[in-house]
Amino acid sequence: MLKLSSAGALAALATTVPGVAAPVESQRRTVPKWEIFEISLQGPSTGNPFVEVELTATFVRGGRTVSADGFYDGEGRYKVRWLPDEEGEWSYTTRSSVAELHGKTATFTCVRALPGAHGPVKVRNTHHFAYADGTPYFPFGTTCYAWIHQGDALERQTLKTLQASPFNKIRMCVFPKSYEYNRNEPVLYPFERNAAGESDFRRPNPAFFAHLELRIAELCALGIEADLILFHPYDRWGYATMPAKADDQYLRYVLARLSAYRNIWWSLANEFDLMKAKSVADFDRFFQIVLQHDWAGHLRSVHYSKSMYDYTQPWVTHASLQSYDFDVAAAWLKAWGKPIVYDEVMYEGNLNKRWGNISGEEMTRRFWLGVIAGCYVTHGETYLDPEQPFDENTTPTLWWSHGGTLHGSSPARIAFLRRLVEETATAAGAQSKLTGLDPGAAPYYLNASSADANGAIQEIVYYMDFHQPIYYEFPLPDGSFTAELIDPWQMTVMAVPGGFSGKTKLKLSGRAFQAVRFRRIA
Amino acid sequence: MLKLSSAGALAALATTVPGVAAPVESQRRTVPKWEIFEISLQGPSTGNPFVEVELTATFVRGGRTVSADGFYDGEGRYKVRWLPDEEGEWSYTTRSSVAELHGKTATFTCVRALPGAHGPVKVRNTHHFAYADGTPYFPFGTTCYAWIHQGDALERQTLKTLQASPFNKIRMCVFPKSYEYNRNEPVLYPFERNAAGESDFRRPNPAFFAHLELRIAELCALGIEADLILFHPYDRWGYATMPAKADDQYLRYVLARLSAYRNIWWSLANEFDLMKAKSVADFDRFFQIVLQHDWAGHLRSVHYSKSMYDYTQPWVTHASLQSYDFDVAAAWLKAWGKPIVYDEVMYEGNLNKRWGNISGEEMTRRFWLGVIAGCYVTHGETYLDPEQPFDENTTPTLWWSHGGTLHGSSPARIAFLRRLVEETATAAGAQSKLTGLDPGAAPYYLNASSADANGAIQEIVYYMDFHQPIYYEFPLPDGSFTAELIDPWQMTVMAVPGGFSGKTKLKLSGRAFQAVRFRRIA
Repeated sequence: MLKLSSAGALAALATTVPGVAAPVESQRRTVPKWEIFEISLQGPSTGNPFVEVELTATFVRGGRTVSADGFYDGEGRYKVRWLPDEEGEWSYTTRSSVAELHGKTATFTCVRALPGAHGPVKVRNTHHFAYADGTPYFPFGTTCYAWIHQGDALERQTLKTLQASPFNKIRMCVFPKSYEYNRNEPVLYPFERNAAGESDFRRPNPAFFAHLELRIAELCALGIEADLILFHPYDRWGYATMPAKADDQYLRYVLARLSAYRNIWWSLANEFDLMKAKSVADFDRFFQIVLQHDWAGHLRSVHYSKSMYDYTQPWVTHASLQSYDFDVAAAWLKAWGKPIVYDEVMYEGNLNKRWGNISGEEMTRRFWLGVIAGCYVTHGETYLDPEQPFDENTTPTLWWSHGGTLHGSSPARIAFLRRLVEETATAAGAQSKLTGLDPGAAPYYLNASSADANGAIQEIVYYMDFHQPIYYEFPLPDGSFTAELIDPWQMTVMAVPGGFSGKTKLKLSGRAFQAVRFRRIA
Repeated sequence: MLKLSSAGALAALATTVPGVAAPVESQRRTVPKWEIFEISLQGPSTGNPFVEVELTATFVRGGRTVSADGFYDGEGRYKVRWLPDEEGEWSYTTRSSVAELHGKTATFTCVRALPGAHGPVKVRNTHHFAYADGTPYFPFGTTCYAWIHQGDALERQTLKTLQASPFNKIRMCVFPKSYEYNRNEPVLYPFERNAAGESDFRRPNPAFFAHLELRIAELCALGIEADLILFHPYDRWGYATMPAKADDQYLRYVLARLSAYRNIWWSLANEFDLMKAKSVADFDRFFQIVLQHDWAGHLRSVHYSKSMYDYTQPWVTHASLQSYDFDVAAAWLKAWGKPIVYDEVMYEGNLNKRWGNISGEEMTRRFWLGVIAGCYVTHGETYLDPEQPFDENTTPTLWWSHGGTLHGSSPARIAFLRRLVEETATAAGAQSKLTGLDPGAAPYYLNASSADANGAIQEIVYYMDFHQPIYYEFPLPDGSFTAELIDPWQMTVMAVPGGFSGKTKLKLSGRAFQAVRFRRIA
């Protein structure tokens, strides 16, 4: 028996027919571009099908042929998923070590993408990102490491909070987290466990992965990229210390299941250098496995604690930093030739930990510093309720790990900054080159600019940081520009009447942490 | 004719007899310890006595003999100054290339120091300072580069402002300043000039130096150290580009005139590396001249713009930094084994220059960061009146250069911090070792401690910077301590009831930029 279905984002789920049984493989079906096309087959359930059964499907369109790994989904179900990225007629043929899964073939039609579906995010213009259809994408991420392990009520609250938030990327782990303030057991475990609580790393838990996929699809429906962390050190179940063979099998299983989700980024680890059972060579190998088995070519990076991974490696698509040193960003951008995301700049909060108690003002400042440095920044929040007793062995609801609700003052300011950055893509005379801000050429104060396809600067943003000049003479490039005084904390944009060119002397507020934007009018 | 007098600080002037004529050199006189003893002789005024007449005096007490250079003070007057640093009987004998100045001899008695006179400041306990009598001295300096060149009214206002300020050190230049916002001519020139305005660098102007000395004496009366800058690059009169011979002669003239002022520190230059007519070797030579001719051994350093002088040189007594990188302070303290003064951390103000427009909050923060790093910090202020038109070619009254009045919010907070640091010297069980804060051994947050002569920590201060924990567990050394919550901006110290030992969990305010102090009670 063969099932054909298109699954994926919630929006997609609403307009296509998920999990519907299709009688024969010769039947033609349609799937919108960048929604999941799924082949579902019934096969053997004896032994350990996760490792004993080989299944791939070859997808063909025109002269193009790509192979995708299938996976065992439990109860005799086998699946192969595909994310069609080209409209038109496609065909597929399966290959398997098991006769009943082998040689299945069919055709289907990829039709126009649904509204809001722009495809996977790719690197664009060296230091920036865009969706596959060319729509600029500016990552303004947040962090909820273990949110999918908190139970349905809290997870739904997290999604609701995300929907109203400025965040379009989320750093989240596959595995549950064992750490200070993270003592709860997960609802579902990623592998089968025996009565003694011992995991069989050779047997993934399909229910766990179905739940993970649901959350990823829900994020997709909200326009949020899932920056999925595949390994991390904060573990008491053995997931951080699996044998190499189990690591690799787990990776291939995740890649087979999730590569068809268009909103996936692969983060090979959170703080890889704190995983004492693993070496850099292990992560090099993991990258190779991802390269080989993610036919969709999702973004790939790895995050560190103290010791940086070599981001010059060709298999790394962008840097994922734990740092708040923005002064070195320009040198790194140049040396690496890749986008840089400051994925951990400490968290806004009031925790008893240095990494979890910076002010909303400082978080806002770090977002501005990162963006003006030509990079991107990720948020996180750790506010304890001051009325509650504190004990690191409890599990209060902290956004950084559990999700829930946001309490900080920075998200509103991050929303404001995101809007300003998105406006670079709609600047007067905007060209496809306009996908974000690059470190500015103007001397002295921190500034960044956005140029069109011909290299002509369309927009310049100055961020004054702790400086509070009462006036300043801004050197503008040739042409004529509007000027706006921006208050990143009050979230106001005040136009200065007139057009400006050459050395432009502006009276400023004399307050600190202000910004000035110039946009080309001629 | 011989004049004997004791000059010096205003306080001293009020209780001793300045400039009084003394009939014969054999007459016994008394001078308080650390006040100026001055020999005044009449000699030739023809030719160029500044360079053609040699004069020294040898001062003897017990088995100790020290030679001091004399100087020509115009109108046939020659002087030799001395700062007696030991009570008891002294004698002197002059030597000169001119017969009428040669062989003058007399005795005098050094009596107990006047109240408030503690002698010159010296390095104490490797990274700190104390007066010669052992009284701890904690530099909390400010900057008025050209204040002695602004005319009597403004200069008196500056002194009045200083008197009410927390500042006990002032960075000030001998030479006038030519720079943005510094376009005025000085009232007096350091060298004789002809009608065309050309200086004769071989002829110092005694009136200029008398005026400089008056200001230094007035500072001394206010308990303020004069961190006297001997060279600087901001010049239109030729003082930055004198021939080497003129440089050396000028230096020896200054050393002969001013070494007897107990509140002198020698700063060989402001931004020495911007003096394009000079090399590092020139400054090495200047240091040698100071070493050789300053018989009082005043503190010696040099300040830079971008390229640091080699502070490991044995003739440098302390580092004088232009920097606000406090993270490296611990490494520098260790490498150099000398006190570090962050003498230029930008200025509080609203100027159109990056160096002259940080907020009062940021200036306050930098003072705290410096002090917690085991160093000292110097203030400066550059506030333009927002109601006035701005033109860099004018000379508004900016404290940083001209003096006048203070407008910023940081001085009150610096006064508060100075009081806290001074309290380290009066901590329970205070010993002579207690002269300031050293970088703390406790991990994680920024902290500094003060130990007694036996190395037992008497006090620990934490500064939380942009962190805002709602509680924190502080690791205390053996013993029992009081705890106080300090708000550096509100300038409050709130005692937490009880005594604390071991790991001490304190509830904190949850606000950023707070401090906590622990002081030993047992």
